[in-house]
Amino acid sequence: MEVDHVGIAVRSLSETTPKWEQLLGSPASLPEEVPSQRVRVAFLKVGSAHLELLEPTSPESSVSRFLESRGEGMHHIAFGVPSVNEKLADLIRRGERVIDREGRPGARGRVVGFAHPAAFAGVLVEFVEER
Amino acid sequence: MEVDHVGIAVRSLSETTPKWEQLLGSPASLPEEVPSQRVRVAFLKVGSAHLELLEPTSPESSVSRFLESRGEGMHHIAFGVPSVNEKLADLIRRGERVIDREGRPGARGRVVGFAHPAAFAGVLVEFVEER
Repeated sequence: MEVDHVGIAVRSLSETTPKWEQLLGSPASLPEEVPSQRVRVAFLKVGSAHLELLEPTSPESSVSRFLESRGEGMHHIAFGVPSVNEKLADLIRRGERVIDREGRPGARGRVVGFAHPAAFAGVLVEFVEER
Repeated sequence: MEVDHVGIAVRSLSETTPKWEQLLGSPASLPEEVPSQRVRVAFLKVGSAHLELLEPTSPESSVSRFLESRGEGMHHIAFGVPSVNEKLADLIRRGERVIDREGRPGARGRVVGFAHPAAFAGVLVEFVEER
């Protein structure tokens, strides 16, 4: 398994992106809207992984609620897996809580699925299907 | 630059480690005490990066304060750099806030240094000197 990306909740992509671009020395991707999560995201490459900056597009986005209660900061960690459905089924079988029972469309045309933060001591874990 | 590790604040290494070992399919390192940060840590390999689980060893540890205010969860992200001192000096020169003005001994015998979360939109960024 590899770290696919680390998701960071931000209030404003346009204000935050330049600092990360300067730190990492690489340009961010053009922002992409992810309707299923009500966010707009931009990716920055770091070695074999990425940072994903997430800006909510609606007050009902879970990222809006995260920003309200905790402020800007790290939001989730995503691991690349051969099959998101198998990974989620494996967690469910072991009695772990999940947000998604099946993979769904995520950013960059990838299939994604989330475990529940309670399953991993407060850490929101995402699985991203490898290509 | 590469993601060296993602740090996760936990109340108990012994309770949390098995879940991550099962998820990642690899054993955690033996816990190591890092006196300068008043934490006990264990590392789990994920591809070319690691997760670092951090358990405070004192109520005065910044990880204790993190757990009190936010609960368990992602605490920092660490990037591998050729020189921690150069990276910190570069941030200071650009007017960014840092926690460390110079590298200091961290876990695994490595030189580390922290920027201030205010420098990166709420994200605590650590630099780890590459070997």
